[in-house]
Amino acid sequence: MQLISREEIEQILPTLDLMSDIEAGFAAFSKGRSNIPPVGELVMEKGEVHIKYGAITGDPYYVIKIASGFYGNVELGLPSSNGLMLLFSQTTGELLATLLDEGILTDARTAVAGAIAAKHLAPSNIECIGIVGTGMQARLQLQYLAPVTKCKKVMVWGRNPERLKRYQTEMTALGYEVATTQEAADIGANCNLIVTTTIAETPILRADHIRPGTHISAVGSDTPHKQELDESILAKADCVVADSIEQCALRGEIFKALEAQVITSNDVKELGNIIIGQTKGRENETDITIFDSTGVAVQDIQIALAVYEKLAKS
Amino acid sequence: MQLISREEIEQILPTLDLMSDIEAGFAAFSKGRSNIPPVGELVMEKGEVHIKYGAITGDPYYVIKIASGFYGNVELGLPSSNGLMLLFSQTTGELLATLLDEGILTDARTAVAGAIAAKHLAPSNIECIGIVGTGMQARLQLQYLAPVTKCKKVMVWGRNPERLKRYQTEMTALGYEVATTQEAADIGANCNLIVTTTIAETPILRADHIRPGTHISAVGSDTPHKQELDESILAKADCVVADSIEQCALRGEIFKALEAQVITSNDVKELGNIIIGQTKGRENETDITIFDSTGVAVQDIQIALAVYEKLAKS
Repeated sequence: MQLISREEIEQILPTLDLMSDIEAGFAAFSKGRSNIPPVGELVMEKGEVHIKYGAITGDPYYVIKIASGFYGNVELGLPSSNGLMLLFSQTTGELLATLLDEGILTDARTAVAGAIAAKHLAPSNIECIGIVGTGMQARLQLQYLAPVTKCKKVMVWGRNPERLKRYQTEMTALGYEVATTQEAADIGANCNLIVTTTIAETPILRADHIRPGTHISAVGSDTPHKQELDESILAKADCVVADSIEQCALRGEIFKALEAQVITSNDVKELGNIIIGQTKGRENETDITIFDSTGVAVQDIQIALAVYEKLAKS
Repeated sequence: MQLISREEIEQILPTLDLMSDIEAGFAAFSKGRSNIPPVGELVMEKGEVHIKYGAITGDPYYVIKIASGFYGNVELGLPSSNGLMLLFSQTTGELLATLLDEGILTDARTAVAGAIAAKHLAPSNIECIGIVGTGMQARLQLQYLAPVTKCKKVMVWGRNPERLKRYQTEMTALGYEVATTQEAADIGANCNLIVTTTIAETPILRADHIRPGTHISAVGSDTPHKQELDESILAKADCVVADSIEQCALRGEIFKALEAQVITSNDVKELGNIIIGQTKGRENETDITIFDSTGVAVQDIQIALAVYEKLAKS
């Protein structure tokens, strides 16, 4: 069994072609060429753990990913999220590698999903990228969008002026032109590619904020309780896309809109089907498109496999 | 993170007081002082994986156990079952230890459960121990019974004469007086403490085989398909005990008897409740008692914790 450290993973991550690997994962998933059981969930007094796992048919490997959130850790000077991935042989069941990534592979594969959705759904001319939230995922989503759009104009929304400032400074250093705002309406008025990355439980963006021709990737909500987009946005959208139709019926923005009965399950498309060209995504430049990312085990499988195989070759 | 090898675990296992640890686990479980989500299950072309996990309230740890069965491994000269346990902090979520036990801790905690059931349910005078099956669990169940009964008389049932002979030789070397049989009726006629350990999908023992005053621990069946005891045995029994009432309603011997409608869920008691004295088990020497073991995560939690804490002190 190979033990792979966070440091090794950090070194290797920038050398991987994650977009095509994870596109292939979503495609296999939507074609039914994978076996992804429901997410395992353990809730304790001080934190919670999610287990995402599965296998792509015909692959040499299967993967189990464990991700936890312990929100009191911040006071202890520890990161609140943590995690590891286990890669096994699909032929013999042997444990081949333990990836002690401490959650950074989950962060990366989530950012990659946002980029894939933008590639397939965003309008052709991006005027300004809107980022909702100022945390790690707000940084990564912007960076992973680089291969998808040349746009360097960014507007970031947050509640905390200090965190907004820090985000602005860091992203400016990476070559972006960053405006900040505490008004969600500003994001809708100025941006036609929006990524929401918060853990909000009451919606931040409303339908009247959003212009025609906008794409939104809603990345933050992955439980039945979190919600960043008012249901009215999904009701108004021309195209609503799930990473997994099955999973989004139980958690995330689509779950909320289904529960509010403003959309039906027939309105929901799946990202993998758009990637393989079986379903149409955006049909014209004025469409409003939404991608709801709840995180599917195929993303974890593909990123674990990419790290493992790259290290095996190096 | 501490990586604990199979060799270290093998060395430490005989020094642990697993019976009281796992009794405490069953007690916590039946008192509702644990959080044990449903078993995760991934079925692939060449094998399957089960994830058992959970936490006992107030414990410093939570545990995730991964156990696989790849039945083609035998042809490759590899063991068919494999597994590992992960022990995390329940305070911060950090991974504290990876126990690379390759399944031996699952084997051990299963054998311990059989011994605990015999301690609480078997008649006071054991004439002969009946073992159904000739594999690893057939060996371990007998060995772990040592603290529970002084009886050294054993009758073992199997289909394969060569495997019967090998079992007889090995257990004789450990001080047992072992008879072999290929007739299931012989086990019922001669033994009043019976442990069934096979992966049979059609029942081996029937009600007319079983004498009054017998205890049976049915250890083999842990899925909805496997069955070692004809439902008629559970219908005839005076006391039917589950390791987990909830889990046994979905898999194992109790599931089969419920499905056949020969018992109702009101007839089923839980081992932890018998351990804490809240429920009566055997009421007199002529009762027939049955324990159905499907394997509960509290057993995995307790054995992982015992290994980890012993190593920390050594």
